Amino acid sequence: MSDSNAVLIGKKPVMNYVLACITLFHGGAKEVSIKARGRSIGRAVDVAEVVRRKFLPDAKVKRIDIGTDQLDPREEGGQPTNVSTVEIVLER
Amino acid sequence: MSDSNAVLIGKKPVMNYVLACITLFHGGAKEVSIKARGRSIGRAVDVAEVVRRKFLPDAKVKRIDIGTDQLDPREEGGQPTNVSTVEIVLER
Repeated sequence: MSDSNAVLIGKKPVMNYVLACITLFHGGAKEVSIKARGRSIGRAVDVAEVVRRKFLPDAKVKRIDIGTDQLDPREEGGQPTNVSTVEIVLER
Repeated sequence: MSDSNAVLIGKKPVMNYVLACITLFHGGAKEVSIKARGRSIGRAVDVAEVVRRKFLPDAKVKRIDIGTDQLDPREEGGQPTNVSTVEIVLER
């Protein structure tokens, strides 16, 4: 799948990302990948659920992956920190 | 799978839930289900990742499900609210 069909979840309201997913599907995408990390992970699940339940009932969860990203330390000599990640792939 | 192998994620530190998962596995469980909803969803992913990466490298993510729970309105006549849920099943 091309990464151009990815929606990266940040701190904006859920509906912004829902709209981004729907726009991709309406533009012909067969799959949309919803990616988030850290505190945005819950919002990624919200986005997938709203897309599926309110807007595109024929969209299905194809795959969900979790993982860990290592972030560079903020200060020199500091410890790298780990942050959890999630990728939810919807298909229709 | 019996629900006695479920760990429900709340507001406590991640390591509390990690310890609960490890205790279940050491007690002979083949599968442990990590369940969370709303703002605890990110913490559920943290728990699964820490268990898998730091403590039980032979544990695998068997399945991840997302869903929506409808909560009763707080006041009479109010709207029910939706909350996203996640279930991460680890197996070894």
